[in-house]
Amino acid sequence: MSITVKQNHNKRQLERIIELLAKDSMYEVRNFIHSIYPAETAHIIESLEPAAREKIWSVIPPNVMGEILVRLHVEVASNLIRVTDRKDLIKATENLESDDMVDLLHSLPEPLLSQVFESIAVAERNRLESALSYDDNSAGGIMSLDVLTVRADVSLDVVLRYLRKRGDLPTATDSLIVTDRNNNYQGLLAVSSLLTKDGHLKVSDIMSSDVEGIPYQMPASEVALLFEQRNMLSAPVLSETGRLLGRITIDDVINIIRDEEGHSLMSRVGLDEEQDMFAPVAVSAKRRAVWLGINLFTAFLAAWVIGIFEATIDQIVALAVLMPIVASMGGIAGSQTLTLVIRGLALKQVSGANAGKLLVKEMAIGVVNGVLWACVVAIIAGLWFQSVSLGALLGSAMIINLICAAFAGATIPLALDKVGIDPALAGGVLLTTVTDVVGFMAFLGLATIFLL
Amino acid sequence: MSITVKQNHNKRQLERIIELLAKDSMYEVRNFIHSIYPAETAHIIESLEPAAREKIWSVIPPNVMGEILVRLHVEVASNLIRVTDRKDLIKATENLESDDMVDLLHSLPEPLLSQVFESIAVAERNRLESALSYDDNSAGGIMSLDVLTVRADVSLDVVLRYLRKRGDLPTATDSLIVTDRNNNYQGLLAVSSLLTKDGHLKVSDIMSSDVEGIPYQMPASEVALLFEQRNMLSAPVLSETGRLLGRITIDDVINIIRDEEGHSLMSRVGLDEEQDMFAPVAVSAKRRAVWLGINLFTAFLAAWVIGIFEATIDQIVALAVLMPIVASMGGIAGSQTLTLVIRGLALKQVSGANAGKLLVKEMAIGVVNGVLWACVVAIIAGLWFQSVSLGALLGSAMIINLICAAFAGATIPLALDKVGIDPALAGGVLLTTVTDVVGFMAFLGLATIFLL
Repeated sequence: MSITVKQNHNKRQLERIIELLAKDSMYEVRNFIHSIYPAETAHIIESLEPAAREKIWSVIPPNVMGEILVRLHVEVASNLIRVTDRKDLIKATENLESDDMVDLLHSLPEPLLSQVFESIAVAERNRLESALSYDDNSAGGIMSLDVLTVRADVSLDVVLRYLRKRGDLPTATDSLIVTDRNNNYQGLLAVSSLLTKDGHLKVSDIMSSDVEGIPYQMPASEVALLFEQRNMLSAPVLSETGRLLGRITIDDVINIIRDEEGHSLMSRVGLDEEQDMFAPVAVSAKRRAVWLGINLFTAFLAAWVIGIFEATIDQIVALAVLMPIVASMGGIAGSQTLTLVIRGLALKQVSGANAGKLLVKEMAIGVVNGVLWACVVAIIAGLWFQSVSLGALLGSAMIINLICAAFAGATIPLALDKVGIDPALAGGVLLTTVTDVVGFMAFLGLATIFLL
Repeated sequence: MSITVKQNHNKRQLERIIELLAKDSMYEVRNFIHSIYPAETAHIIESLEPAAREKIWSVIPPNVMGEILVRLHVEVASNLIRVTDRKDLIKATENLESDDMVDLLHSLPEPLLSQVFESIAVAERNRLESALSYDDNSAGGIMSLDVLTVRADVSLDVVLRYLRKRGDLPTATDSLIVTDRNNNYQGLLAVSSLLTKDGHLKVSDIMSSDVEGIPYQMPASEVALLFEQRNMLSAPVLSETGRLLGRITIDDVINIIRDEEGHSLMSRVGLDEEQDMFAPVAVSAKRRAVWLGINLFTAFLAAWVIGIFEATIDQIVALAVLMPIVASMGGIAGSQTLTLVIRGLALKQVSGANAGKLLVKEMAIGVVNGVLWACVVAIIAGLWFQSVSLGALLGSAMIINLICAAFAGATIPLALDKVGIDPALAGGVLLTTVTDVVGFMAFLGLATIFLL
């Protein structure tokens, strides 16, 4: 009955499917896909190249297509939507919860969007239209419209009878939302209280009214932090006037955290948009080319700095041999500080109020490590080229660059954050520019002054 | 009633505390700390330097210390534990849930651990001792021992009466666990069924027995994927023989995801262990020095390669100016591939079965971008140094290095993963070594052959 630990279940499923696809036994593929969860099918689809994806897609019944589509990265989903019958797509949307429906509608091309919309009942359509108007990355954009509300003045027994008549609960219902007749949020009634308290008590007696609602404009990343810090499973989303608009559940929060962290990893190498591992070569190459182009500018800037000192290098060629060491160590040390500060910013642990202390600390580390490694490289380079002055020079340049690296590593993300540019995306390039330019300039400049 | 969106609540709280600390109004600090959640206090403590942390710590009542300690990074927690009275620490552990208790016990120094242990009732102590024996990063290490079990042969009404007598439910209880008299796992009884189904039905009629239990050895990262893919809120953890050992809840899963992603970000720059932003300079400098030392080896290796071609550079000094461009572009392109593959490995979307296809795709991108940027740099360098052959050479070296970078970026993480080394930690250094060595070797080697 328990899952084997021998191998990760996703890997095992993926390998099984690849094996079946290789044999081209589509009937077995179908049976296998029908035996696993939609999210697992989505996982398999993302791990396959486009041709194999369509084969898998062909064995999926329309009524589960929706659940799979909402779990795929937008890019992968759009490609599958393009090859899917309109009739099937309309069916695919039918069984979805409203927040999933909104997600899916977001990824439909225009003519199709209208067609799907027309197939939806008018009342539901109006609800969805307002949901579509919220910012994707805000509480409003994440929330589900499926909420279960109760009034404060009824007894728990009445609530229980109502639930029994209703027959089911929305997912992740750890509490019912208490509202007044105008749909204004009043508090939460924990399901655990409902199960354990006396049925004659009124909702108002046991509901907790100290749980704040989430304003619909709150950024998704902050919603996630709130859920984490307050151990919430679900939370009501409110309008400016306190009216209940919807409900965010913990599974949405997990998606936010994954997306956010994936973003901060990928954007560091300019892969912000590249969510599809098997995107066509032309598409991937184009996206990455942009990043390479931006970095080429940095590389040429560094080359230009070196070019200034061509005459110096011409006289002492050992400089050319040693100069990348200064630049590279600066880059490494700077990116340590940069990573720490970006992480702190993302988790809201760094703000204007403590940034100064952090900067001082990072620069102190820069001094310590600058001096330490300056001694090491000075000795190695001195012995290698039999020149004390060359060693001393390399060491001095190293100290300068490591201190500048710490300063840049701390201030660049703070400045970018202040002006609203994503530090994870732009921080690394800017940092390398500083450490390359300062590294080459310090080493070759000092050499020009003292060795020539 | 709703939270303001003007500013993130964590930032606001942090700034308020820093302001109060600056005024040294400890009474207000106390009142403020008492008004927020333990996780929020933990967040503030981590955002402050050590001296300020102890000030905050002094206003926290012992009975909430435990809840704050388990939310702090181990390093920060240990430092606070060191300054806390033993009596207070014993009190701090008293109110914790068993999984939090185990976490906290893990971070206690030896003599204290025994003392705390002695203060715990014998039955509880035995339970905790077995929990402490599981690997921290496995299902057993994460699970809570607080489970609510029911028998399959009783009616829902009996279950409801039992819950009412009990008076409360463990956190995140979306289902009760059904076991036989030997504590073997049989299935789950959803709380929603309990609320909505007829009370005369038996547990066995409505429990779902197709939900698999999690084996206690399953790695934490796989537990997280399982929860995500199957939209679970809680899951039973089982022994090899199917006996119920404990229960994992969604809040643990969120911690796993945060830790995991934090790890993959930080370990890339050798900051694996550095969880405390305000660790003392000496401690931080020492840790980072190790990483700088490892990278220094790479830098000297690159310098050594350049050294081989000293005579060539001595004749054509323009080579020294241009050579960092080849190495740097290789590093950038390689790290794009590396990041993509490491992410795929972490999410279990890359395995032996599809690695080949991914490698081919990445190398194709390398060829496309290699040729593209080779043309660009060839033209710029050709014009700059008025030399067609120098431009052609730079372009050729660029193509070679970008293809090698794609190959290394894809194969290094796969190989590291296979031999059990964390690709996020070691991948970057190895990649840079390859792209530096190949870049300098290709450019200076081609120049030696064709330009001299």
